[in-house]
Amino acid sequence: MAKIIDGKAIAKKLRAVVAKQAAVLKEQAITPGLAVILVGDDPASEIYVRSKERAAAKVGVDAKTFKYPNDATEEEILTQINALNQDETVDAILVQSPVPSQINEQTIQEAILPAKDVDGFHPENSGRLFAGQTGNYPVANTPRGVMTMLHHEAIDLDGKHAVVLGRSILVGRPMFALLQKANVSVTLLHRYTPADLRRQLLATADIVVVATGVPDLIMGADLKPGATVIDVGMNRLPNNKLVGDVNFDTAQKVAGAITPVPGGVGPMTIATLLETTVELAAHHHHIELEHGWQNI
Amino acid sequence: MAKIIDGKAIAKKLRAVVAKQAAVLKEQAITPGLAVILVGDDPASEIYVRSKERAAAKVGVDAKTFKYPNDATEEEILTQINALNQDETVDAILVQSPVPSQINEQTIQEAILPAKDVDGFHPENSGRLFAGQTGNYPVANTPRGVMTMLHHEAIDLDGKHAVVLGRSILVGRPMFALLQKANVSVTLLHRYTPADLRRQLLATADIVVVATGVPDLIMGADLKPGATVIDVGMNRLPNNKLVGDVNFDTAQKVAGAITPVPGGVGPMTIATLLETTVELAAHHHHIELEHGWQNI
Repeated sequence: MAKIIDGKAIAKKLRAVVAKQAAVLKEQAITPGLAVILVGDDPASEIYVRSKERAAAKVGVDAKTFKYPNDATEEEILTQINALNQDETVDAILVQSPVPSQINEQTIQEAILPAKDVDGFHPENSGRLFAGQTGNYPVANTPRGVMTMLHHEAIDLDGKHAVVLGRSILVGRPMFALLQKANVSVTLLHRYTPADLRRQLLATADIVVVATGVPDLIMGADLKPGATVIDVGMNRLPNNKLVGDVNFDTAQKVAGAITPVPGGVGPMTIATLLETTVELAAHHHHIELEHGWQNI
Repeated sequence: MAKIIDGKAIAKKLRAVVAKQAAVLKEQAITPGLAVILVGDDPASEIYVRSKERAAAKVGVDAKTFKYPNDATEEEILTQINALNQDETVDAILVQSPVPSQINEQTIQEAILPAKDVDGFHPENSGRLFAGQTGNYPVANTPRGVMTMLHHEAIDLDGKHAVVLGRSILVGRPMFALLQKANVSVTLLHRYTPADLRRQLLATADIVVVATGVPDLIMGADLKPGATVIDVGMNRLPNNKLVGDVNFDTAQKVAGAITPVPGGVGPMTIATLLETTVELAAHHHHIELEHGWQNI
């Protein structure tokens, strides 16, 4: 039976590291500032933004939410972003997804100063990641959190093959780039990959990251025995049960290690967002941080 | 036996298309301008830059070379790039690689205005490509030329698996992104991929693009029968023979189609560079071009 990777516990350790880093900044009278722009009244987004605020407060990050009504114009949001770009107390800016349809998400993302782009969505940042550049630039938090999990679990990446399923800007693409940067041989699959080809490639995959939104897309029989399985999926079934994209019961019999849903990747995202916020603040003030995720 | 893909013939067709596009711009008194910065006296670079100039003149692109001595400083080059960024007659800028070691290639690349970055190396452009954005942004010319070849040969990409070997900024990474954008399922391999894993993945590859600089890295026995093989390698053997990264004699017995070296991908690069230059000029002057590579 696979080892269950406890994302909740790893996220807790990461938050403790981030709180220490924030305390170091506090000694120099710096409070990392995170600005969240929330447009509309999607209840799930509101809950999510509130949990970001709470988690931020606990580690010493000053999170402020800027709420706009459902009929806010793109111009209003751009004006808000411009003000935040210039605000010296704000180190990190994010626009909560989704936004209403009158607002072009790409335009909004690209208006955020790359140095404050805590989600790593700006093409300048994703371009650096894709090029494999070292140095200080923000990276999408969910895949970054997955890398932290793999590190924490001491998963061997050397000479391995990873298959990433799903190619969103949020998860799949930066996940590909991060694994690639760690010298993994990586295959990126998506909705146009035929099922036969998917199975053929999964059979050779030492690491599988799934972020497709399709429950039970991956069954135990699809996996290479001993594979590490990271399930980024989060699907609400008609019976209200929350499941991932991997069939957990069959997969855990074949995998070497597997993340559960919930309690796997989910808790890592906000912890990593706070980690990135503190790093952006440190970089902004030209301070070198010690004791990062390597130490959890 | 595999069909030999005649890169020379395809490049010729592409140059004819580009010349037509340049003629359309000429009617509006626009001459596409390409600025090439050449630092040092590498003989291969000089030959290459001269052939760029000649090819440019033939299609109606105004190519100017700015030569600097081997001991030029980074600041001198940055000053030159700034001047070219502001020069309204220059639509496209490239710095011939390699540059002497006192010059940081990344700094230089990022100083070029993204809208004039004809090599597509600026993180803002490579970020757009990586994100799969549509719209007008320059893309690295060698992999773009490969896509034109695949299109010209009517290679079926639908539901296929491609393996890209080599992950340079110049070829492998943008090749991955372009194939991915065309909905191919793509695996990116590199020097840290174990030989066994490479063979395992090649055995399922319908399309193979090799850009590693290792002669005979790929043998016929490594290929899936009928695969399309694109050899970007260009290696000079001790006996002075020019070969690719693929063992041509064994590969052509297994592949469905294969590019020779020389005469395969090589001729496509300059033709595509001119294509991109003309497109940047058109975009710069807000003119919609017709009859692009789709029509060759």
